[in-house]
Parts: sequence; C-alpha cells; structure tokens
Amino acid sequence: MNNVYIIGVGQVPVQENWDKSLKELGGEAALLAIQDAAIGYPDALFVGNMMAGTANKQLQLGTLLADWVGFHQKPALGIEAACGSGASAFRAAVMAVASGEMDSALVVGVEKMTDSPSAEITASLATAADADLEADLGLSFVALNALIMQRYMYEYHWQHADFAAFSINAHANAVHNPYARFQNTISREQFSKSAMISDPINLLDASPVCDGAAAIIISSTPPRNHRPPIRVVASSSATDTLSLQNRKVPLRLSAAIKSAHDGYAQAGITPADIGVFEYHDAFSIMAALSLESAGFCEPGQAPKLANEGLLRFDGQIPVATFGGLKARGHPVGATGIYQLVELTIQLSGLAGETQVLRPHYGMAQNIGGSGSNITTHILARE
Amino acid sequence: MNNVYIIGVGQVPVQENWDKSLKELGGEAALLAIQDAAIGYPDALFVGNMMAGTANKQLQLGTLLADWVGFHQKPALGIEAACGSGASAFRAAVMAVASGEMDSALVVGVEKMTDSPSAEITASLATAADADLEADLGLSFVALNALIMQRYMYEYHWQHADFAAFSINAHANAVHNPYARFQNTISREQFSKSAMISDPINLLDASPVCDGAAAIIISSTPPRNHRPPIRVVASSSATDTLSLQNRKVPLRLSAAIKSAHDGYAQAGITPADIGVFEYHDAFSIMAALSLESAGFCEPGQAPKLANEGLLRFDGQIPVATFGGLKARGHPVGATGIYQLVELTIQLSGLAGETQVLRPHYGMAQNIGGSGSNITTHILARE
Repeated sequence: MNNVYIIGVGQVPVQENWDKSLKELGGEAALLAIQDAAIGYPDALFVGNMMAGTANKQLQLGTLLADWVGFHQKPALGIEAACGSGASAFRAAVMAVASGEMDSALVVGVEKMTDSPSAEITASLATAADADLEADLGLSFVALNALIMQRYMYEYHWQHADFAAFSINAHANAVHNPYARFQNTISREQFSKSAMISDPINLLDASPVCDGAAAIIISSTPPRNHRPPIRVVASSSATDTLSLQNRKVPLRLSAAIKSAHDGYAQAGITPADIGVFEYHDAFSIMAALSLESAGFCEPGQAPKLANEGLLRFDGQIPVATFGGLKARGHPVGATGIYQLVELTIQLSGLAGETQVLRPHYGMAQNIGGSGSNITTHILARE
Repeated sequence: MNNVYIIGVGQVPVQENWDKSLKELGGEAALLAIQDAAIGYPDALFVGNMMAGTANKQLQLGTLLADWVGFHQKPALGIEAACGSGASAFRAAVMAVASGEMDSALVVGVEKMTDSPSAEITASLATAADADLEADLGLSFVALNALIMQRYMYEYHWQHADFAAFSINAHANAVHNPYARFQNTISREQFSKSAMISDPINLLDASPVCDGAAAIIISSTPPRNHRPPIRVVASSSATDTLSLQNRKVPLRLSAAIKSAHDGYAQAGITPADIGVFEYHDAFSIMAALSLESAGFCEPGQAPKLANEGLLRFDGQIPVATFGGLKARGHPVGATGIYQLVELTIQLSGLAGETQVLRPHYGMAQNIGGSGSNITTHILARE
C-alpha cells in the first residue's frame, strides 16, 4: 500500500448561507484546497454528502462538482453514510490512492441544509435511522439521542447540568474560529435555561442546522510546498445495528470502540498518544459516548473529564478545538472533512489561539446515525 | 496493486415487487452472493443506490444492509452516481481490495422504485440532471434523452423505426432470463404503435421503472469453489458536464469515450477483443451512443449494427444478452451490478440459451445522468 499524505485543505464558513448554492459551497472549498495543494487538479473527486437528494433535489454531486470546478473528464462519485459521509468519502479516497490506482484525490464534504423547511430537514435527518423500526414510528433523530441521554443519566447518576461543560468548551474554542457557526461563549446559566427540544436534550446540547463545505487533497507523495508532511496513519470503519432497539448495550457505541481499536492498532499507538481529538459531538450525549468508546475514560465517566477541564485545548485531551459539531457547526455530510481539515491545521501548528501544544498524532471520529456507522482517522506529523 | 477476482454473484428477479422492502431485496441478493462465494462474510460492504433517500425515506443503506444480513461490525458505506451508482460502488470496492486494505468485499446494487408514486419517481430521477440548468426548468430525465434522440435522428438521418431493433433484441434475449422484468418478445409493429412518452421516445424505447438487487463478492484470491477465475482487468471512470447544454458535441458521450479508452488501455486490448458487451440501454438512443462511444462503430452508425443483427447474442457484438436495461429492467442503482453479474455468468459459460460463444473478455458500461458519469469494467476469464 502507498503512503497517503494530506497536501491541501480548504473550508468555507459554516453558517446559514442563503447566498450560495450547494455547488457553489462545495466548489469554493474544493478550489481552496486545490490552490493550497498547488499540484493542479488531482486525479479524482470523492464527495461526501447526506441529504442533497432530499433537501436540494440534486443527486450526482460527484459529477456536479467535478463539472463545476473544472475537473475535465476525471472520475467522480458520491459517498453516503449519513452524518458520517465525510469521513467515509475520505476513507474511500485513501484506499484509492493507497491502491496505486491514482496518485492524488480531492475529497469534498458538503451539505446545504437550509434549502428545506425545518420539518423537511427533520424528516431528512431521520433517514439516517432505521425507517422500519424507528423513523416510521415517529422518532426524530434528536428523539433517538434523547432516549440514549435519558438512559445514560439514569444509569450513571448524572444531572443534565453536568453536560454543560461539553458545550461551554466547544463554544469557548469556536470564538477563535472564523469558520465557526457560533463565535460566542455560553454560560452554565444559559445552558440550563435553554429551550427544551426533546427531553433531556435542549438547544445548547445540540449542534445546529447549517450549511458548509470543506475539502482535502491527498496524495501518495508528500507535500512539496510550505506544508509539513501530515500522513494518514490509520483509517478504520465499523458498523452497528442501525436501530437502537437491537443493541444489547445501547450506552456503549460498539462500532466506535471497534473503529477506534482498529485505528490505534493500525497506527501502533494508544489513546495516550493522541494529542488532539476531534470528536462527534452532534449532541452532548454523543460527546460523552465518543470519549468513552475511543478509550479516553471508563464508561459513564466522560462528564467528569469535561467538568474537570481536561477537554480544553490546553487540557489533557483536547477536543472540539475549533468548536466541534456543537459550535463550529454540523453541516452533516461535510462534518467529517471539517474535522480532518482542523486536525491538519492543528498538526501543522497553525491553529492560533486554540493551538494544542505540539501534537504528534491527531484523531477524528465521524459518526453516522445514532452510533451505527463510525469512521476513525489518525493523522501524524512526520 | 493486488489482483481482484469475482468469486460470487447473486441477483433477485427484477420486477414491481410489492412484497419485499428495500432491505429485503438488497439482503436477498447479498446472501445469495455470500452463499455462492462460500468464504463466509467478506471484509466490507459497498452499496450502490440512487434514490433511497427520496423514494424510500431511508439513507445509510450501507449500514442498513450490513445490519440486516449480519455483517457484524464490519465497514459499510453507500455510493451514489445516479444510474451509474452500481458500477461506481463496484469500482470503489475494487480499489479497496486492490489496495490491500481488505482481502474481500461485497458490493450490492439495490433500488426499490415502486415505493413512490410515479410523479415522485420522475422527480427523483431528475435529481440525476443539473438542478439549476435542467431539472428546475421542468426537464424530466426522459425529456433530456428525447432531446438527444431528436438531434441524433436529424443529424444522421435515421427514422424512429430504425431504433426498434435495439429493443427487439433486448426483449428476445430477456425471454430466456428468469430474472428479467419483461420475458416477452416484441415486434416492429408493437414498437411503432407504442405510446409516446417524450417525442420521439416511446414506451418501447424506454427501460421500465422497477425494483431489483444484485450482488457480487470480490477477492484478492481466485475462487476456491466451482467458479472459473474471472478477473477484473479494467476499472475506469470518467465524467462530463452534468447538463447537456454545456456540451460542445451532445451526440458524442465524451466521458464514455474516455472511460472505454482507459479501460481498453488498462486491459491491453481493443474493442475487437470484447466477446460480450453489457451496455447501458436506458433508452434506445443511449444504446446507440453507448456502442459508438465504446468504439464498436463510427458516430451515427449504431442503428445499422442493430438492424443488421450484429448485436444478437450470436452476432458480432453481443449486447444486452440477458435483456439489458430495456427488458431485464433498470432498477437504477442496481443496474451496474446486474450488468457485472451477467458478464460473470457469460464468461463462466453458464448463460444458457443466450450464451455467447466462448467469450474471453466481457465489458460493462454503466452510465449516470445523461452521459455525465460513466464507469467501464472489463472482466476476463483467466
């Protein structure tokens, strides 16, 4: 297998973007990455997206973006694994470059959620759940996460207020990220007074509906420009039952455990080696389960880490260093690529105010569905 | 790069299937392939599908099928390139196995179009076109193909009746295929009297709305069971502008030309070496353009081939040997996998009544959009 390096990145601000279409957002991120890598056009295009068919009435995003950004005749396709589409697209591209079939590839994650009325977006997001066993019973995606959070609080004796620290930390980091949806801090009081969405998940437990696009160029050759060599040292993916009801232990994300374990094995490291962790905090309960399944603490202990300040960018396990899904925003199919762009910036030492102290390894964990499809990537500065 | 062999295939009958859900169809094809390969569960699952989000309110098909067929924890994802989703999924899996990242993979193509009212299916199919430049103007997918056919007839002086031979040949072959949607012959008279859909495309120019699923297992190791070793000797993909209006020469499928050319180069062969060609005859005009772009005749000459009987299973260029998209049926995201299953059966000498005489190379060409995303595979019996 060939080595795979990240040689260029690009991102657009996450926001409610009423001025740009889906292809304009994706194209902008793509061209920024192409400019950054400075190798001309890469050999193929992989696009991660979840809901363009339902929310934007446009499929064929691979071809659409290839056409839009001038990828004359080169191969292109779309990858879908719900909110994990971004990392799944990245992983498919990594395997394509590793195989020698191509020398370089562009991966774009893009999502434009605001084209649809919010009831339709709720329905679109629910397509990530099991239609027969969950969505058709009226369970929205937030409701599924609320069931998990209820159970977690009961099982491990946490109060809702104990989860505030996850969101407060995410917002504190996002203040310094010009690409973040929310560039403001939040307080414990604001968290506790926030509007209830699906008990116990309130507005400040949840990532926002938003638009965004991020892009990465990978190559079998190390970067020849100003960038330090950032290598993909692990790419692993695992699945679980699509429905919560079929899981024996719904509070343990078995696919995340497997995916993280495989990732550590590929990289030959342990959780203690990870200098920065971009986790999938779509909801504060997912932040907790993400940390536990990746081996950063025992089951039921993640809120303790958050409340002790260990998750801060200058703490022991820096997470959501650019705001995470909660505050940078969660344009679903784009999120996995934003995470990898952010890790690249951290490993390059270019993260500014929230720069983690000389990280060698960075890990990103992208989750599709309620823990049903999980892709882990570990990057290393060589 | 590792070699890639086809070691198991499965398919379900293409029909309007009111008794089985999307996951039941996909699962059935998957389990047939798993049984056929007899190596237990392969290492990962790739699912090609176009419209599950819009037509079935279910995304995450990779995870859904992995869950449904018992792929405990293994990686899974979905691939989308409109009607070319099947071959794109196969190509992604081929690269994954070629890279050494995995030893084997299951690829499923599945589509259940009949869950939606037909107006919604027309809208879903139009998501393969450019929303801004085509679909939003009211152009359906059939209408786009009708524009091409109008121009082709004008440019090359063919009458509508000259296209009958493509559909007659497809139906004649489908009679012997128990998996075909239409197992009946059609006559020139029926063709000429068929209901107009979008002038000049009538009902018998067009492939049907239908449900279906097909599956293939690939491996870096040749089959250890009864199957002859069928190897993937070329996998190539190319794109064109999504919209017709942006093409300089709309009657030449430049992406198909590029994809076929790259495929021949990879395999080290020419069109004359191809013993059987599964082309993408979604409409009779696409059958014509497919043959021309793959180098089997000069531009504008394909109807001549059809009318001279050269496309019959015992002719010079056997096509649609199991009925093609026209008569086997075109469950859009599944089609690319049906084509490859059929090539495998032909190369194995198991095609029965429509067996081509000792083919060594077989080629499949799967088209997404109106010629905008084209993936070519060449298989060889070793």
